[in-house]
Amino acid sequence: MISESDILKCFQHLVDSTYHKDSILLGSGDDAAVIDTQGRQLVHSVDISKIGVHFHESMRPEDIAYRSITTALSDLAGMCSFPSFISIALTCDIEEISWYVKFSNGIKEALDEFSIDLVGGDVTNGELNISVNVFGYPFKKPILRNGAIPGDSIYVTGQLGKAKQGLNDWLNKKDSIYCKDFLRPKPQFQKAKELSDFATSCIDISDGLIKDLGDICKQSNVGAELCYEDIPILNDHKDLTHGDDYELCFTAPCHLDDQLKSQGFFLIGKIIQKLGLSVKKGGSEITFEKNGWDPFE
Amino acid sequence: MISESDILKCFQHLVDSTYHKDSILLGSGDDAAVIDTQGRQLVHSVDISKIGVHFHESMRPEDIAYRSITTALSDLAGMCSFPSFISIALTCDIEEISWYVKFSNGIKEALDEFSIDLVGGDVTNGELNISVNVFGYPFKKPILRNGAIPGDSIYVTGQLGKAKQGLNDWLNKKDSIYCKDFLRPKPQFQKAKELSDFATSCIDISDGLIKDLGDICKQSNVGAELCYEDIPILNDHKDLTHGDDYELCFTAPCHLDDQLKSQGFFLIGKIIQKLGLSVKKGGSEITFEKNGWDPFE
Repeated sequence: MISESDILKCFQHLVDSTYHKDSILLGSGDDAAVIDTQGRQLVHSVDISKIGVHFHESMRPEDIAYRSITTALSDLAGMCSFPSFISIALTCDIEEISWYVKFSNGIKEALDEFSIDLVGGDVTNGELNISVNVFGYPFKKPILRNGAIPGDSIYVTGQLGKAKQGLNDWLNKKDSIYCKDFLRPKPQFQKAKELSDFATSCIDISDGLIKDLGDICKQSNVGAELCYEDIPILNDHKDLTHGDDYELCFTAPCHLDDQLKSQGFFLIGKIIQKLGLSVKKGGSEITFEKNGWDPFE
Repeated sequence: MISESDILKCFQHLVDSTYHKDSILLGSGDDAAVIDTQGRQLVHSVDISKIGVHFHESMRPEDIAYRSITTALSDLAGMCSFPSFISIALTCDIEEISWYVKFSNGIKEALDEFSIDLVGGDVTNGELNISVNVFGYPFKKPILRNGAIPGDSIYVTGQLGKAKQGLNDWLNKKDSIYCKDFLRPKPQFQKAKELSDFATSCIDISDGLIKDLGDICKQSNVGAELCYEDIPILNDHKDLTHGDDYELCFTAPCHLDDQLKSQGFFLIGKIIQKLGLSVKKGGSEITFEKNGWDPFE
């Protein structure tokens, strides 16, 4: 049977390099890590990626690792913050050492791509379960879900539905350009940085636009009116509710509409006083009293 | 089937009170939490508690929650740091809502006892698995594993073996005073505070004295000589290797021996130049070349 020590050896190369030597005073290897936040506000979130729920058992270990980390990092983008370091709690019952080598390579790809450090973790035996803790700092200030006000415009940062298409293609063993959108989601840090100057609220679209914009509405105590034709979707209305896209949804004062559209953001609707979420499509309108999860089903 | 939303409602009462209103700028409920560390060094660790590995499936949910948290907190004590906040990644496939209510009450007991805040978490469906992220700050400065030097005295903060006895008693349905030592382990923050003024190295005894002191020796590049008769144990030599006691093992300059003994710390041996760990018992001596895991087996 593979030992904890065998597994830890596969991860050793991950804790050698340090992107933030000035703030990571002590990384992995002791009882705990020690971090100097240098007077900045620390932004922290935790996300579980579970086999059979968040990823498929036959996915490559590199992709499982990369996806677990980047979907967790996306919460920092949703706060208009940039990532600095992570820690990982890995539960795994796989016996092949080669799996751990590949898994650690997927971690390394994410660490290098986002210039972040792995400062610690834990490993135990059981059904594959990856809990990723992410830590970062605001680009300017954290943009929360509760700041949308009636009159604000609603934006998304990119096309929705690509991850769903990618998952379908991948499951059907079809090698399409969308597979990477599911297997290798990208948190939108550059866009988060751009919008942190003016956004009144922001969230990352992990659970689908309707659910996530619904959370902004609930926490801001406002409603939303969307124009279906303006929403950049790949296929159909299900792209509004599927999730996994990891684009951002945000609100901003409407006097910035021209500027934001020219920056490439998609204006999809407006915040209104009346609670609930409605989508105008052609001549008809669908209203959801309580920001319901899936309006089209 | 129980929904994520049903489960989250059980935890709602945990995020209402805030012990650290001045530093927890934003707690649970948004994409991430925001913390002002107020110029202090942040100490962070993550610990998984897994059913069948770290706790027994028939344990009360209150005890599972409490134990998961306090065993994770113990890593902060091992750094001579005090706790401030935690986040929890819970994977669970239990369908009874009453289980979550009791589990959340166990969390609440730990939060209140140690005056700490729950700032976030994640919940997903699967085999019971609790990953607890702990965060704190040094009492004075973090005491690491790598600072022991030859000539230092070696101490433990309390009796070893009580948790093992408690586990045995609990498994045999015997209601002894030791059951709580297994079910409700206490991180040694008060003792950590006292020893943080002078300790040269420190670790919490989670894996057994021999393994944990072995880690101090490895990281300090020194050896250790213990006197069996001086080690406060409940039963027999297996108390040195079982773990789960969550007392602290630390080293300190030997000129403080009288003072530290009068403070109630147990002097159990000394740090030597020669690598390896040996225990003198009666006239004989057992030597372990590589700070082996279990010398007596």
